[in-house]
Amino acid sequence: MTSPEVAVIGTGLIGTSVAMAALRHGSVVRGFDTDADVLARAVDRSGLQPTASADEALTGAALVFVCAPVHEVAKEVARAVALVPEAVVTDAGSVKASIVAEVAAIVGEVPPRFVGGHPMSGTERSGPDTASAALLDGATWVLTPSPETDAAAVRTMEDWITEAGAQPIVMDAEYHDRVVAVVSHLPQVASTVLMNVATREDADRSGVLTLAAGGFRDLTRLAASSPHLWAGIMRANREELGRAIDLFIEDLAELRRMLAGGEDADIERALESAKAARLQLATKPKVRDGIAILQVLVPDRPGVLAELTRALGEKDVNIEDMQIVHSSEGGRGSVQVTVAADAAKGAADALAGQGFDSTRIA
Amino acid sequence: MTSPEVAVIGTGLIGTSVAMAALRHGSVVRGFDTDADVLARAVDRSGLQPTASADEALTGAALVFVCAPVHEVAKEVARAVALVPEAVVTDAGSVKASIVAEVAAIVGEVPPRFVGGHPMSGTERSGPDTASAALLDGATWVLTPSPETDAAAVRTMEDWITEAGAQPIVMDAEYHDRVVAVVSHLPQVASTVLMNVATREDADRSGVLTLAAGGFRDLTRLAASSPHLWAGIMRANREELGRAIDLFIEDLAELRRMLAGGEDADIERALESAKAARLQLATKPKVRDGIAILQVLVPDRPGVLAELTRALGEKDVNIEDMQIVHSSEGGRGSVQVTVAADAAKGAADALAGQGFDSTRIA
Repeated sequence: MTSPEVAVIGTGLIGTSVAMAALRHGSVVRGFDTDADVLARAVDRSGLQPTASADEALTGAALVFVCAPVHEVAKEVARAVALVPEAVVTDAGSVKASIVAEVAAIVGEVPPRFVGGHPMSGTERSGPDTASAALLDGATWVLTPSPETDAAAVRTMEDWITEAGAQPIVMDAEYHDRVVAVVSHLPQVASTVLMNVATREDADRSGVLTLAAGGFRDLTRLAASSPHLWAGIMRANREELGRAIDLFIEDLAELRRMLAGGEDADIERALESAKAARLQLATKPKVRDGIAILQVLVPDRPGVLAELTRALGEKDVNIEDMQIVHSSEGGRGSVQVTVAADAAKGAADALAGQGFDSTRIA
Repeated sequence: MTSPEVAVIGTGLIGTSVAMAALRHGSVVRGFDTDADVLARAVDRSGLQPTASADEALTGAALVFVCAPVHEVAKEVARAVALVPEAVVTDAGSVKASIVAEVAAIVGEVPPRFVGGHPMSGTERSGPDTASAALLDGATWVLTPSPETDAAAVRTMEDWITEAGAQPIVMDAEYHDRVVAVVSHLPQVASTVLMNVATREDADRSGVLTLAAGGFRDLTRLAASSPHLWAGIMRANREELGRAIDLFIEDLAELRRMLAGGEDADIERALESAKAARLQLATKPKVRDGIAILQVLVPDRPGVLAELTRALGEKDVNIEDMQIVHSSEGGRGSVQVTVAADAAKGAADALAGQGFDSTRIA
């Protein structure tokens, strides 16, 4: 593909990573950020050309990436559409329908050359200092064109995303917002609330710290994400997230009723349907049919994971997932290794060959 | 320590693992299970001596482990107390107060030589075939003596547990049940309900499968646990779990109200308190002060994790946690490696030295 002149508005983690991907492919990249320090660090990290204003960055651009915080996206998209009407303009906001509506309200129509976008490469990070073109590598990058959107603009974006090593996926903006409310924003809410309930239940946390096992740690890992960033995302997807929380509360209350009423068969059915759905989701399509989890006891010292993974690698066993479970006292722990079911025997043998005692637990 | 004659009633995963630990230390171990097939497999796995009845297993025992399903524990404890009154009797049920109450109801008092127990070595497994003495190694093993319990019986259990490589922790039965309701049973409920809500929201699951990232996978991993086993645990801890679900719903509804009311500062405060609590819980005490998470892009092939972990091990970097994040298409993925904050720079350098591009994301 040719290398279009690129403008990046907002040079945080995603903006700077986009700039680095564009530069790698020979584009001229101009960037602007309202925070002069952020812009300077983006220049250090990526080599993009800084400008003194958004207008200056946009002038001459054929491709515009608006990577500003969610609440500033619409006005920057509108600015770009007005200044460089021939350019393809996209954004990186993690909520889509409200942005399209805001843009349409400012511009007076849905601009045909604007393609809403959401590169899903994580939201717990921020700032240009850890940006990398590699961040986009393999990431799912959602595009949410409207009926008014120019098909050629969508194709331009699909090609650019593919060239950058990511996976473009086109979907409706409302559908995107509804799905991320459930698979991304609701998990954040559940994790946060669970951590707060546990803290309140055990003010000195001695019991929680002592008895919290892998399951609790899994469910509360997201609670350590950036509060400011997440407050903004929740606000931007207020309606769909509210609906998702309602559904969650409704189902929790239903299970609560079953518990109080002694409806044990119904509880077991709810557990069974969740299990079936989760197994469908497990790891990659090729191993979805069957996985095995091996629990391996390991001393807690540098290098032990290298021995473990080497034992498997040498026998051509692919590790699908891996989780480290520390004992509450430290010093000793176990590793849960997920492999395809038909590789379980070979994996156990390979581990035994290197002196690791493994137990198949799923 | 001397090696007491041991009886194991119920030879599933925990019972057979206990038998193996006892045999390793030279005890004579007799075992019984109402399921003849389970008993036969336990014999194959462990070498315990099978008996034709629980009474026969108990006769002559100085130490009795009742490892039956939760709803059968009390009557087996009562049987043991009646038949071998000098023996120390313990159980392995994951709920404690209701078992003590049931035992007291049958026996007419809380038997002084009965010490309630809960080896916390996981509940997603079942059956003797994967039993191992190593399963108890490093596990937290809760003991919940009543005021009536003989102090010498508690000491006997503490010594035995320590000898088996596990960590004995004494706590009040009610406190145990309240904490596990929050840190173990509520996470199971939240995981199950989240998976069911996502399934319902997206009947064909195409959107969920496409957009579900690490966070959703973390939160729904528990949903794949055994429905039958979990229905039993929930029933046995009905009251405390009900209370925990109520607290959870209450806090969710509060956050839902903040969201609808636009109380963004309050939402951010809730996120902040959860983050602070979660960081306190993170990994081991020695790294609780500060961790770093490095994201490393890796091709999806056997052996690559061995290269990655070896690179860190050779530089004496200890891996505190590790998570594999597959791209939705497979073929490529990333690994998130958690290390102590002061080891982050060395870890990144070690990875770079082996050609791995890492990004610090937390």
